[in-house]
Amino acid sequence: MIILDGKKTSQDLRNEIAEEVSKITTKGYRPPHLAAILVGNNGASITYVNAKIKACEEVGFKSTLVRLSDTVSQDELLEEVEKLNQDESVDGFIVQLPLPVHIREQKVITAIDPRKDVDGFHPQNLGRMALGMTAFAPATPSGIIELLDRYNIETGGKHCVVLGRSHIVGMPMSLLMSRNAYPGNATVTVCHSHTRNLDSILRSADIIIAAVGRPNFVTGDMVKDGVVIVDVGITRIVDTEKKSGYRLVGDVDFDSVAPKAAFITPVPGGVGPMTIVSLLKNTLIAARLRVRKTSK
Amino acid sequence: MIILDGKKTSQDLRNEIAEEVSKITTKGYRPPHLAAILVGNNGASITYVNAKIKACEEVGFKSTLVRLSDTVSQDELLEEVEKLNQDESVDGFIVQLPLPVHIREQKVITAIDPRKDVDGFHPQNLGRMALGMTAFAPATPSGIIELLDRYNIETGGKHCVVLGRSHIVGMPMSLLMSRNAYPGNATVTVCHSHTRNLDSILRSADIIIAAVGRPNFVTGDMVKDGVVIVDVGITRIVDTEKKSGYRLVGDVDFDSVAPKAAFITPVPGGVGPMTIVSLLKNTLIAARLRVRKTSK
Repeated sequence: MIILDGKKTSQDLRNEIAEEVSKITTKGYRPPHLAAILVGNNGASITYVNAKIKACEEVGFKSTLVRLSDTVSQDELLEEVEKLNQDESVDGFIVQLPLPVHIREQKVITAIDPRKDVDGFHPQNLGRMALGMTAFAPATPSGIIELLDRYNIETGGKHCVVLGRSHIVGMPMSLLMSRNAYPGNATVTVCHSHTRNLDSILRSADIIIAAVGRPNFVTGDMVKDGVVIVDVGITRIVDTEKKSGYRLVGDVDFDSVAPKAAFITPVPGGVGPMTIVSLLKNTLIAARLRVRKTSK
Repeated sequence: MIILDGKKTSQDLRNEIAEEVSKITTKGYRPPHLAAILVGNNGASITYVNAKIKACEEVGFKSTLVRLSDTVSQDELLEEVEKLNQDESVDGFIVQLPLPVHIREQKVITAIDPRKDVDGFHPQNLGRMALGMTAFAPATPSGIIELLDRYNIETGGKHCVVLGRSHIVGMPMSLLMSRNAYPGNATVTVCHSHTRNLDSILRSADIIIAAVGRPNFVTGDMVKDGVVIVDVGITRIVDTEKKSGYRLVGDVDFDSVAPKAAFITPVPGGVGPMTIVSLLKNTLIAARLRVRKTSK
């Protein structure tokens, strides 16, 4: 059994990104600049955004955090989005989800200029990705693709079961795994809350990508020997023995599944770090376009 | 075994559309207007475009056919697209595919105003459809959805196998069948040229949607009793006994599969007529928006 080490792989990627940033700045261009809008005081959201800002600093990006109160109106938020759309000093930006219930997330996401949508949530980016065109792919799926690639995991002709059909993970993941490319060319089955006979589908899977947000949902008796496991789930479980008061648990019961797996991502330290580095990579791609456009 | 009669169902739909058109014109608005650009003299393309124009006439639409020589340059074609984008008397238009090899199809499709893209091929429409937003869905997949709906075919929790991952049929079809709606909520597996163990996957299918363009590819021994069959394939096979010199053959071997099927589409007279009526429906939707915008 081999651990798909997202922490190490993402560090390798960050080093590569940092190298390219230093080349960009050596040539006299400003470094890539990622901005993030954070609305309200959701604890998990603050943790995620801080991790993204910290990652920016490590690779030499400029970063800007726009914090707004959770009483901000939808129109005010849309104004902030438009400011960042227009701001030529910003290469890409994200609006951290979830947003307060009085704001329509879709309205905000579609207001982002697709060329700055480094989260890859805008319908135009999703459509372009689905059609095999250049696009910002959503961070979590593209982080997983990168991880499979770096470990040379065979995917062509394999049966890949994607657990979950969310707009930001399961659905785009299924499109990437079945496209005509590497990693890809897998026979993909998407499972969700309506799926029957889930056990037998999982047992036929060569690759399982679990993104349902149910702690320890996939157990050892549900998988076959030699399976490749990618665990996207990350749920906080109360744990009084931890200093923080909680621990992070994936969708896969690591202890029972790992002994049967050929490859498996741990939680934490698997998909999470890859997601953040994919955001950096998308921002770098946006910056590359800017450099190319302004190069003499 | 029940035939999923696309010819009859599409006629029902055309009648409903014609009724709405007469309501629109009675109120003093102009009828929906579909334009089509046809490049060159491909026999099948001419047949398809003519069928679309004829369908427009039947339901009271205005239609315009723009014919261009197969030596037209990409820039000239893009100019024609832009003219139709700007033409306020046109509600929607299509560029008949395939285009000559010297023209990049993607360049042309992305030049179409998404609000007039009644073929649903623009990345923005595909992305919006994938995200469950209002959008023009591609004509063939939405025709199939309509057919399943009109026959009250159960899809929730069913195993739906989509054969083929094309950008205009297989891929969008898989998204529609797995979305959280009816028809939909199926557990969807997408199969393609890299798929192994296709026979056993097909035998586990409750619903098979075949779109690979290989005549009689699916045979009776590959399917289980009670399966629902949707046959998108339509290949011309030389047949000297026919006046036309050819006959149309689907991806499914009707004679061996039909006796085991609960529901099955014939070829011709199944998916084909539904595709054309979906194009009409998209154009009607575009016209509705125009009427709403201009209503006093």
